[in-house]
Amino acid sequence: MTYAQAPFSTAEYSRRLDLVRAAMEAADLDAIFVTDPSNQAWLTGYDGWSFYVHQGVILPRSGDPVWWGRNMDAVGAGRTVWMGADHIRGYADHYVQSTVRHPMENLALHIRDLGLESSRIGVEMENYYYSAKAHEVLLRNLPLARVVDATGLVNWQRLIKSDEELDFIRRAGRISEKIVRQAIDKAAPGLRKNELVAEIYHAGITGVEEDWGDYPAIVPLTPSGLDATAAHLTWNGAEMRRGEATFFELSGCYRRYHAPLCRTVYLGTPPDEMRRAEAAQIEGIEAGLDAARAGNRTCDIANAFYGVLKSHGIAREGRCGYPVGLSYPPDWGERTASIRPEDETVLRPGMVFHFMPALWMDTWGLETTETILIREDGAAETICNLERKLFVKP
Amino acid sequence: MTYAQAPFSTAEYSRRLDLVRAAMEAADLDAIFVTDPSNQAWLTGYDGWSFYVHQGVILPRSGDPVWWGRNMDAVGAGRTVWMGADHIRGYADHYVQSTVRHPMENLALHIRDLGLESSRIGVEMENYYYSAKAHEVLLRNLPLARVVDATGLVNWQRLIKSDEELDFIRRAGRISEKIVRQAIDKAAPGLRKNELVAEIYHAGITGVEEDWGDYPAIVPLTPSGLDATAAHLTWNGAEMRRGEATFFELSGCYRRYHAPLCRTVYLGTPPDEMRRAEAAQIEGIEAGLDAARAGNRTCDIANAFYGVLKSHGIAREGRCGYPVGLSYPPDWGERTASIRPEDETVLRPGMVFHFMPALWMDTWGLETTETILIREDGAAETICNLERKLFVKP
Repeated sequence: MTYAQAPFSTAEYSRRLDLVRAAMEAADLDAIFVTDPSNQAWLTGYDGWSFYVHQGVILPRSGDPVWWGRNMDAVGAGRTVWMGADHIRGYADHYVQSTVRHPMENLALHIRDLGLESSRIGVEMENYYYSAKAHEVLLRNLPLARVVDATGLVNWQRLIKSDEELDFIRRAGRISEKIVRQAIDKAAPGLRKNELVAEIYHAGITGVEEDWGDYPAIVPLTPSGLDATAAHLTWNGAEMRRGEATFFELSGCYRRYHAPLCRTVYLGTPPDEMRRAEAAQIEGIEAGLDAARAGNRTCDIANAFYGVLKSHGIAREGRCGYPVGLSYPPDWGERTASIRPEDETVLRPGMVFHFMPALWMDTWGLETTETILIREDGAAETICNLERKLFVKP
Repeated sequence: MTYAQAPFSTAEYSRRLDLVRAAMEAADLDAIFVTDPSNQAWLTGYDGWSFYVHQGVILPRSGDPVWWGRNMDAVGAGRTVWMGADHIRGYADHYVQSTVRHPMENLALHIRDLGLESSRIGVEMENYYYSAKAHEVLLRNLPLARVVDATGLVNWQRLIKSDEELDFIRRAGRISEKIVRQAIDKAAPGLRKNELVAEIYHAGITGVEEDWGDYPAIVPLTPSGLDATAAHLTWNGAEMRRGEATFFELSGCYRRYHAPLCRTVYLGTPPDEMRRAEAAQIEGIEAGLDAARAGNRTCDIANAFYGVLKSHGIAREGRCGYPVGLSYPPDWGERTASIRPEDETVLRPGMVFHFMPALWMDTWGLETTETILIREDGAAETICNLERKLFVKP
């Protein structure tokens, strides 16, 4: 296997293009310019850590997509995308992080060259890799085009996974099980947290049998004690201590596909308050899984979970899940539907969510989560198979 | 050591605020809103993997900075920043990745509350974490403010490192030496690349003695053979092979500070062409280091290097270096000066660059690089200490 091999079948890429073009037609768009690295990879196979400079995919209503980026990354595109070399375009290095030039000046030239200068073009205005400045420069250089916001247009097409994608997610799930188990097995008083994280990385990148591990879109979040009252702290060199809970928010990654899985370990004897919260959380997850059925809505999952918590006297609100699949940093979520009371996305078979019913309390945090697949019939399937509980080590 | 401890002295944070405020005064700005996670951390100590949602630092002309972000991350701010709780502000979860609300609506309320609604406010228009949409929503919600582009205003103040920062960079350098050595030692025909990367991660996160390893802002780039003709491919599960060069583009990370270091290993006997390129590259690096003196300019380093390459008949152009220090994904560069022929930044003692004279050729790639410190007198100092050559293993 080399890089010069797109990960999916021709039929799969055709399926994706068809979905996106139907959405473009519905939105009356002649073309879209896609900057989200996940969307770029989903459409073309492009894979490289080059999204720190401007790059993207131009997709007109017909013909193959065009990958555009820095010259040296156009070489990487040649090694990873399924399109021919005539659908890869590069820009010179003097555009990179320059104070006098902007890559969008070059993009405008290519858009003109493709005959799209007077067309209606969708851009992803809410994306990490489409800056306010990029938008300003692009507009100035395409005075005849109608540039409109198409944030999420591609992302929404990714919501229902194909069988080929589910296969990748399941492989990621095996890696997730392995690394969460590794974290729980190794956790011990006196172990420095960074040493634990080193083991997590080693297990995840090694992967499972033939399935090599890719880098997850979020680094391991492994806070202990009071640090676990916050949601997104990473790690440091402090020793693990008796009398503290540590949560592991982790995901295996197989060729950019994710299946996040969180568990919590307590070193010592957990306080009764935490045990009661654990019971409420597990019961709430079961209620959520039962509500996660085709035809129901995302809010039904959230309401089922929050309802159980409330019956146990625990107040929690906000978002408790999001779709996952192919992702690049900084987020492994797809940024479309959310599992929350105000979101009414109808659940369909093949959708995959990270159901994330975490509890961040005043003096500790408790994360127990599942990546779930919506099925044709019945409650959701959990992609990973790992005991659902607070793990306690003496 | 816990998270609840900002990494630098009070005097160091004061130094940073003074520099930024002088730049604000020169630019006639009443306040800046800082979204770059590296700038946020540099000013306040904030550290967490939460930059995938909108957050930032509001810095008026006087008083402590205000950290603003999602409620659950305001808890993380309480664990990491040096300011008091009254300088941390949160927004509710229903703003997160919503299709009907935007966090910038909330930011505008806080800017009003701080008495800045009619002021002249600088924003970082060219930043991964300040989207075109964010800018549009902020402008709409602050109709009386004059919102202007202040991209790089904070970044340029980071260019000359303090002694406290140099200490962190040197610690990162020890980790860089360790992981590059580890990669070269382990490389062998038949070893799967992901297994090698697992070893690199393990060594880097374990760190060196008391200095625990943080996650670098760029994942390991470790391509072999034809994949190494591209600059930014990561890794896969293929076995390393005899007759191929593999470059390692790596950095240790100590508390978010970096000291990148690249070396290349060849398994077998390198072709004469590569040996000749190696000689040219080493000679060019020496010429570059000699030109990297206080009072010279960044272009002098680039021209010295390209001059030597040209004398060896190798054509290469573009950027061959950038400042490094504190960084978050997706880039460990600071995005200010560049080492390239058109950049005339004057070199000052305390500046730190990744001098990156890599060669990506038609059938192979050769990376040999150094993180360099500009000194009071004499040629640049290399932060890492590792033999500068193409490593060859039979």
